[in-house]
Amino acid sequence: MRVGLFQFHPVLGDIDKNCSLIIQGIKQFHGDLLVLPELAFSGYALKNRDAVNAVAEAPHQSRALSCLQSLCQEKNCHIVAGFAEQNGEKTFNSSALVGPNGVVSIYRKIHLFGFEQELFSPGDGPPIVTNLGHTRVGMMICFDWMFPEVARTLALDGADIIAHPANLVMPWCPQAMVTRCLENHVYSITANRVGKESRSSQELHFIGQSRIISPAGEVLGQGHDSASQLLEVDIDVMEARNKTLASGNDLFSERQPQLYSSKLHHQGNMS
Amino acid sequence: MRVGLFQFHPVLGDIDKNCSLIIQGIKQFHGDLLVLPELAFSGYALKNRDAVNAVAEAPHQSRALSCLQSLCQEKNCHIVAGFAEQNGEKTFNSSALVGPNGVVSIYRKIHLFGFEQELFSPGDGPPIVTNLGHTRVGMMICFDWMFPEVARTLALDGADIIAHPANLVMPWCPQAMVTRCLENHVYSITANRVGKESRSSQELHFIGQSRIISPAGEVLGQGHDSASQLLEVDIDVMEARNKTLASGNDLFSERQPQLYSSKLHHQGNMS
Repeated sequence: MRVGLFQFHPVLGDIDKNCSLIIQGIKQFHGDLLVLPELAFSGYALKNRDAVNAVAEAPHQSRALSCLQSLCQEKNCHIVAGFAEQNGEKTFNSSALVGPNGVVSIYRKIHLFGFEQELFSPGDGPPIVTNLGHTRVGMMICFDWMFPEVARTLALDGADIIAHPANLVMPWCPQAMVTRCLENHVYSITANRVGKESRSSQELHFIGQSRIISPAGEVLGQGHDSASQLLEVDIDVMEARNKTLASGNDLFSERQPQLYSSKLHHQGNMS
Repeated sequence: MRVGLFQFHPVLGDIDKNCSLIIQGIKQFHGDLLVLPELAFSGYALKNRDAVNAVAEAPHQSRALSCLQSLCQEKNCHIVAGFAEQNGEKTFNSSALVGPNGVVSIYRKIHLFGFEQELFSPGDGPPIVTNLGHTRVGMMICFDWMFPEVARTLALDGADIIAHPANLVMPWCPQAMVTRCLENHVYSITANRVGKESRSSQELHFIGQSRIISPAGEVLGQGHDSASQLLEVDIDVMEARNKTLASGNDLFSERQPQLYSSKLHHQGNMS
């Protein structure tokens, strides 16, 4: 199958403009699965809850997700994209997996980074894996990468590909995703954004460097630091199904949970 | 405190020679904690169980560990080193934490790599953290790095420093240890070996590149690809105690085990 990502510079607070940028930017995409950045339709540095409410949408009446569905119909593909989700009084930093028939699944970011905690509620459900028939897609969002349990959860629950919308400002994630793919023997597609935004006195400089990585830790595609870019590569999802390495080691059956700390299962600091 | 590592080329099967190499190689060490490679006294490519039995030692009558105790007395320090451990009928690929008064703790490698499974029994106890008063030292060995649960276990159980004897032949671990330190906000000291050994028709080329890494993911010291080398750096162990990042995120209290897969707690493949 053919997978890709589109890294670009969303305009803060302008859903219609960002739909146009995405439609324009992915014209040349001819793959089966495309990943877009976190909060791709709203931008990132939303000033306060009012600004979030102005761009957050309920999935069944979302301009952002309708735009994606139209693109999926046109290209006969699936798209994963970050969007601000409205659910009653709450807003979530969410990722939607959309296909020609509409929304297939939604993941709400569990691990909110920095000021996101002022703007969104943390995800209230587990990271989920969606079976598309030809492939099983797990979703996580940006800072979720820092918690190895998230990618591990997706892989143990059967993900072949981790679709990873991001708005990265720190330097570590692109390299860390190599480790996430190696330790779980899965593909990952990190779609980061580029450009700058500011909030209060803080300037945010997004690092680009979106990546498609194989289960063997190979970087199959890498985006620029600062330019919009569409990347597309062919992958064999069956590579992610066999967890046995050339050494004969099996990354899943050789896990020894009975020897790992019982604190893994409990929240909070060490005593 | 001051920590270090000694990467070198052990001679296969010759404990006394390797003691001499270590004594000579660490003459200039003046720190508090030193880490040596995996199987530092026996070499790695042991031909069969007989060859292992010829070099495996019970801790209370081990030439290797006596050598380390003498060095610890002379230098008033602690040393972590890999050795082949005999225990009744079983042999383990173990790591000992030794001080001036002798062996403080022993860890038996849980995740045996490739042909090690023909030579050793897998570790039968959890990864352990030893409190030395000024610092808390966790041990893991080589391929244990591939399983994120091991470093996570050590960190959740209070390790400030992960002492990591290794005999690396694949290229990924040095970079992956940056991720292990970042995600757990701990120091790591990976003491790898250099040189070549062969076994059956397989040639093993050890990659050196030993590393001392900070909780912020900085590489504080890095060894050569192929030369013996003593590395030493000053660290502040208190850096590893605070799990709160500049963003305000706390890496431990923000874990959400109730949302992670229940498969994390169970052995075996996904269903």
